[in-house]
Amino acid sequence: MNSPTFSFQWLPFLFLIFSTSVSATLYNIPRLNPIGGILDDPETASTSANVLDNLETFYFDQTLDHFNYRPEGYTTFQQRYVINSKYWGGANSSAPILAYFGAEAPLDGDLAVIGFLTDNAVKFKALILYIEHRYYGKSIPFGSREEAFRNASTLGYFNSAQAIADYAEIIIHLKKILHAEYSPVVVIGGSYGGMLASWFRLKYPHVAIGALASSAPILYFDDITPQDGYYSIVTKNFREASESCYQTIKKSWSEIHEVASKPGGLSILSKTFKTCNPLNKSLELKDYLETIYASAAQYNDPPRYPVNIVCGGIDGAPFGTDILTKIFAGVVAYRGNQSCYVNGPKNISETTMGWRWQTCSEMVIPIGIGNDSISMFSPNPFVLRSFIESCIRLYGVPPRPHWVTTYYGGHDIKLILHRVLENISPSVVAVQTVNGSHCLDILRAKQSDPEWLVMQRKEEVKIIKQWITKYYIDLLAFKK
Amino acid sequence: MNSPTFSFQWLPFLFLIFSTSVSATLYNIPRLNPIGGILDDPETASTSANVLDNLETFYFDQTLDHFNYRPEGYTTFQQRYVINSKYWGGANSSAPILAYFGAEAPLDGDLAVIGFLTDNAVKFKALILYIEHRYYGKSIPFGSREEAFRNASTLGYFNSAQAIADYAEIIIHLKKILHAEYSPVVVIGGSYGGMLASWFRLKYPHVAIGALASSAPILYFDDITPQDGYYSIVTKNFREASESCYQTIKKSWSEIHEVASKPGGLSILSKTFKTCNPLNKSLELKDYLETIYASAAQYNDPPRYPVNIVCGGIDGAPFGTDILTKIFAGVVAYRGNQSCYVNGPKNISETTMGWRWQTCSEMVIPIGIGNDSISMFSPNPFVLRSFIESCIRLYGVPPRPHWVTTYYGGHDIKLILHRVLENISPSVVAVQTVNGSHCLDILRAKQSDPEWLVMQRKEEVKIIKQWITKYYIDLLAFKK
Repeated sequence: MNSPTFSFQWLPFLFLIFSTSVSATLYNIPRLNPIGGILDDPETASTSANVLDNLETFYFDQTLDHFNYRPEGYTTFQQRYVINSKYWGGANSSAPILAYFGAEAPLDGDLAVIGFLTDNAVKFKALILYIEHRYYGKSIPFGSREEAFRNASTLGYFNSAQAIADYAEIIIHLKKILHAEYSPVVVIGGSYGGMLASWFRLKYPHVAIGALASSAPILYFDDITPQDGYYSIVTKNFREASESCYQTIKKSWSEIHEVASKPGGLSILSKTFKTCNPLNKSLELKDYLETIYASAAQYNDPPRYPVNIVCGGIDGAPFGTDILTKIFAGVVAYRGNQSCYVNGPKNISETTMGWRWQTCSEMVIPIGIGNDSISMFSPNPFVLRSFIESCIRLYGVPPRPHWVTTYYGGHDIKLILHRVLENISPSVVAVQTVNGSHCLDILRAKQSDPEWLVMQRKEEVKIIKQWITKYYIDLLAFKK
Repeated sequence: MNSPTFSFQWLPFLFLIFSTSVSATLYNIPRLNPIGGILDDPETASTSANVLDNLETFYFDQTLDHFNYRPEGYTTFQQRYVINSKYWGGANSSAPILAYFGAEAPLDGDLAVIGFLTDNAVKFKALILYIEHRYYGKSIPFGSREEAFRNASTLGYFNSAQAIADYAEIIIHLKKILHAEYSPVVVIGGSYGGMLASWFRLKYPHVAIGALASSAPILYFDDITPQDGYYSIVTKNFREASESCYQTIKKSWSEIHEVASKPGGLSILSKTFKTCNPLNKSLELKDYLETIYASAAQYNDPPRYPVNIVCGGIDGAPFGTDILTKIFAGVVAYRGNQSCYVNGPKNISETTMGWRWQTCSEMVIPIGIGNDSISMFSPNPFVLRSFIESCIRLYGVPPRPHWVTTYYGGHDIKLILHRVLENISPSVVAVQTVNGSHCLDILRAKQSDPEWLVMQRKEEVKIIKQWITKYYIDLLAFKK
């Protein structure tokens, strides 16, 4: 018998994007935003429904601390949620609710690109609900972002357990005011939001009948996944795109090192890469390049395929071009013609600010670069102890690197989930693809979508339909 | 296919005991302690194992706040746990762990009477683990009970979500230091501790393969269970024991009221009931009697059967005895010969102190007495609003009466659990008995135990054995 539950989306390539700005001083801490590093393709969506039509915005008076009865925890903040009820079949027919869980960004960006709910609402006669994550966008406690981000005392409430409790409160509240107690809820999220969706299904099975977790690295904690898992896939992705491109990148690091260690070497590098400001150390350049490769691979979306674009630049340089000039040609191909590169003015986004706290408290995702002979990167291992020290320097409190696996599990997941969810095959469905990029499946459907992407989304819709059908059978039996 | 999970023990009579002391000024807030109101029967246990032998005490450096990264939340306290490893088969054979969850009392009392683990450890080759609940016994944060109970700011961390996170931390820690990662864990608790056990199984399925929740009223929250459920069962219990006893008690309240409203009536009542101090109002007497009946019914243990004892006193009075003298004879039969009754010096136990906070914050269990014609009690409905006001007066913060159902569920449990746990019949096993009393099944086995009790425990052991057997099959397949 199958219990409806997670659909894990282990997109084969990448699921993380690097924060390009502040984190370089700390670690290249991954971001897990569903939205890509480069601008969204302006191409029209294939469906007629515009994702931004029929949206209504509401605010819920949310409890700051669900797990503590200190008077301070009773403080509330206004949490934003957005509804599209155009396609909903209504409470009388217990029509379903598709609930999107905001991740580490203001909700506005998601509303514009997460098309999966709108694209499928008609089929399901579903109410669409988007909820913003606490401490992002308009859902800020303590009256202002400045106050909320002041220090660990105000940031302390900013974590996943509180966030999914928020989501439970809002879903229960909404069902109540809509008299939709028997409407099944499917929760959906991408990347960190996908982790939240699958953890929500685990912790609140009485609220959600299933979760679609797109590109959610729920096993990248503690010692479960080898720390070089992420970058080894970036390498693989580039090598599959072009062997010569891969070789060029692989050789470039020692070249950078060699040039940098010569007298006047940093000036040469600054000139070669048209840096906005003179380089202070070669690490600035290395971090920048790492970020470009990772971001291109992670958001390797059709029809442009950014990895091909980077490699096109690198491989397309005239015969005899030196390595670093080739690398720079890849940068220009990817970033476009700019007046300067590498260390221009940094805008510290809400995501950068927020995710830096999250990774320094709870979401300790140990991603490093190992010293193997295949990697196209230079080694940069993740060392927990120095990571902890950096976080203490930044926030005054250490991260809790084992808490995620304590609270949500993760070790021996095949043994455990098998038991928790009966049978890993029918109930924990991994919809894998050979191609793919970060959270691509939950973005808007487009005319240019390749066949495999169309099929993947169809498969997901089919699974959700099965969950809902089974729920209605149970509901009928229950009401009899 | 069955997923091992809760075994609910819905003992047919009662699962709550009333706090006889302070709460009268507030509400008769139920206590949920597995240990009875009267002294434990001194009769020798039937098994040779002494529950207090082979115990080793340890302390774990426990995080004060698992769900917040404020610097204050990093404070730790010493949490007590006790181990009996005499019967354990060891880590190499992945021998199981039976973990008892402390409830709203110091652990010492449980160690003396909870015999289920010791009685069955040999069969399972199990390690026995008892964990004390935060804010009780020796597991007090903030350095002292006085500090810990100072106000809502220090009490705020005292709730079930934090408590089960404590239990998860200790179990994971213990398995790690024992290298017993693959030892299956079955969690066991009675009453409030039984709720914790079943909620733990729900929230931490990766840590426990099953839960034995004895007499755990997990559905006595919000509007799930009618508020007079508790007292209507007390009534039923007395009526089944003796119709005349039931009729006498039923009539006694108006008699008390009538006498009390006469001039000098309180003096008469004080004399009739040999009160330690002159009664200030008849409510003192009513609360006292309610508590006696509820406690007798809740802990209606063989071989003494306190309900029979109370009714023996009431029914045994000479023909023609007036109602209140009969009632007093019941009190004396139950309490024994004392120099005085009703309002003697009150000792405010740790349980009274702690449970008062717990019911005034999270564990809002709406128990009232309705106005029906069958009840043997005088009406005393639970009014949420005035309950909330009393709690605010006491602690400065209101309870959160809907949080338990938000976090743990409970509404439409047959629909929900059916879905969560596949099939309510094989996987959520309710071991019911016609006879029974509060948490009786997890107390020590005795020579005098009636046949039904012996059979009930056998059934529970059989179910746990099935869980463990199934786990080992899964483990073998996993390790292959």
